[in-house]
Amino acid sequence: MVVTIIGAGMMGSALAFPAAENGHEVRLVGSPLDDDIIDACTATGRHPKFERDFPKGVKYYKVGDWRKAVEGCDFVIGGVSSFGVDWFGDEILANLNPSIPVLSVTKGLINLEDGTLISYPDYWRKNLLAKGIDRHICAVGGSCTSYELVFKDHTAVTYCGAKSADLKLIKEAMSAPYYHISLTNDVIGLESAVALKNAYALAVAMTIGLVYRNHGKDAGLHYNSQSSVFGQAAREMARFIAIQGGTQESLNVGIADLYVTIYGGRTRKVGILLGEGKSCKEALEILAGETLESLVVVRRVAKAIYRKAELGEVSLSDFPLLCHANEVIENGKDAELPWESFTYDYTE
Amino acid sequence: MVVTIIGAGMMGSALAFPAAENGHEVRLVGSPLDDDIIDACTATGRHPKFERDFPKGVKYYKVGDWRKAVEGCDFVIGGVSSFGVDWFGDEILANLNPSIPVLSVTKGLINLEDGTLISYPDYWRKNLLAKGIDRHICAVGGSCTSYELVFKDHTAVTYCGAKSADLKLIKEAMSAPYYHISLTNDVIGLESAVALKNAYALAVAMTIGLVYRNHGKDAGLHYNSQSSVFGQAAREMARFIAIQGGTQESLNVGIADLYVTIYGGRTRKVGILLGEGKSCKEALEILAGETLESLVVVRRVAKAIYRKAELGEVSLSDFPLLCHANEVIENGKDAELPWESFTYDYTE
Repeated sequence: MVVTIIGAGMMGSALAFPAAENGHEVRLVGSPLDDDIIDACTATGRHPKFERDFPKGVKYYKVGDWRKAVEGCDFVIGGVSSFGVDWFGDEILANLNPSIPVLSVTKGLINLEDGTLISYPDYWRKNLLAKGIDRHICAVGGSCTSYELVFKDHTAVTYCGAKSADLKLIKEAMSAPYYHISLTNDVIGLESAVALKNAYALAVAMTIGLVYRNHGKDAGLHYNSQSSVFGQAAREMARFIAIQGGTQESLNVGIADLYVTIYGGRTRKVGILLGEGKSCKEALEILAGETLESLVVVRRVAKAIYRKAELGEVSLSDFPLLCHANEVIENGKDAELPWESFTYDYTE
Repeated sequence: MVVTIIGAGMMGSALAFPAAENGHEVRLVGSPLDDDIIDACTATGRHPKFERDFPKGVKYYKVGDWRKAVEGCDFVIGGVSSFGVDWFGDEILANLNPSIPVLSVTKGLINLEDGTLISYPDYWRKNLLAKGIDRHICAVGGSCTSYELVFKDHTAVTYCGAKSADLKLIKEAMSAPYYHISLTNDVIGLESAVALKNAYALAVAMTIGLVYRNHGKDAGLHYNSQSSVFGQAAREMARFIAIQGGTQESLNVGIADLYVTIYGGRTRKVGILLGEGKSCKEALEILAGETLESLVVVRRVAKAIYRKAELGEVSLSDFPLLCHANEVIENGKDAELPWESFTYDYTE
């Protein structure tokens, strides 16, 4: 097969590995921001952020050549970041033969006025339909960092989409001994789950900072409090995914992703700083230059829930953890958690 | 109120803190194995394993005085380990006024011949009914290590039992600013969830050892593979708790407990050793002297599932991770995970 990846960020580029190792021709196309990356790949055969060369069978294209790169391809992988969503929709999807399947790695949700949060595949579909183009876009969920995929750590992902035949075709091309692919038609559930985990990972990480604040920096890690908040995160994620119309299986993918997101990187750092008592502004200054997706997701999901509550569709008391995190971020509320609001009484 | 705790292990003894801080009289009674602990408590006012003195209002009793210690008490907390289950049932419960509520902290499941796994409250109830005694026993679930409770890290637990009035009474006595109590009638679901998490934490920890084995000891932690197995653990726990007739909320408690169990202590250690390629016997030698509850739980749950499969009630293919862990432990199977068996296709 011929696989065209558009967007040479880390995640899109990492998918060149299983695809090319499976013997497919892979065409990696930079976005308008990726010219330097494509130059480097062409010169060295390696992505500047990776520690392994690309396998044989990968060809590199700058954005101006994207039409050449999709000629005769079996499917396209969209590898843009959330900042490239409109460019990808308007420039690529609107001009790509609708019979070519597309798998997008871009993660996120978009707020509508009525409190609905829609997925990028849904957003693109609506915009394309307005232009008279009928196409569904597939997407990816699950915990998959690009470094570890390139390292060949065993990785499980779920591909979601409305068209099962597209999903099966792409799975066949991409499956590798270390890359294990499940399939579902539940796009909104899966995309909601993977977005939510960023918001809730921040909330769980706040407990770490709270322990430092309440017991001193040398108090170390304490798991009773982390577990309490992890449980509450699971409860609220389940409620939100049910509202979104998603499945239990997609919730599970989000919970597994939550587990690892707490342990790594920027989301953990900002959560700890907020827990220690830093304001959101101070935390952003300390982590200067880092993209904090988790803050965006907290705000978007909270906005959706507040709007749905105004419309009488949800009760805010079902989401005390998310509302708390949003208040900490938006209004400088003290980070100490509303612990008793997490308890329940299910006795008869 | 007067609260009598029978069994002076760490968990039972830790519960003396919130109870006594709430102004109740607390009577801590040693089991037949706890004479030295009671002597130490009487001499120093501190449990030998804790770094804080007991609060005022705690009195200490050796096992011979247990009848005196329950005189006029409002409820009893059973603090024996799983080795003390029969002693607690035969010596205490069979001779205790059935109108006194009992909350047990002992965790575990017991296999019946037909593949059923029952909780300790159910086990005690059956044995007591055979003696003509009609009593229900309440139990505790949730992630609560005794050290962290004594440290006053925020802790969320769920009390379960058939008698809601008992649960409410005990909650009222025990709730503290750092000890947050939820209630449910779902005894079997909650007790199953907290037992299962030990088995599945071992399975997730195996991925850490597998990375060492496949990529070298300096490969560090990798989260793609941990997340894959965490997701599969969540799926299998959900299936098993559904078979047990438990609720989604009890599953959540188990998942939150799974999250922290992977990060701490003996279960993690044995999982890593097995992943690295050590046999179960070698792992036990390396960890000599440590009690490995997780191995017991894997065997018990696997035994139940194999028996239910024989009876045509479950499909083993719904539990590939648990069966794999059991094969590694029992039959020396290589620890490399059956990754593809964790994928699913839920498309139509």
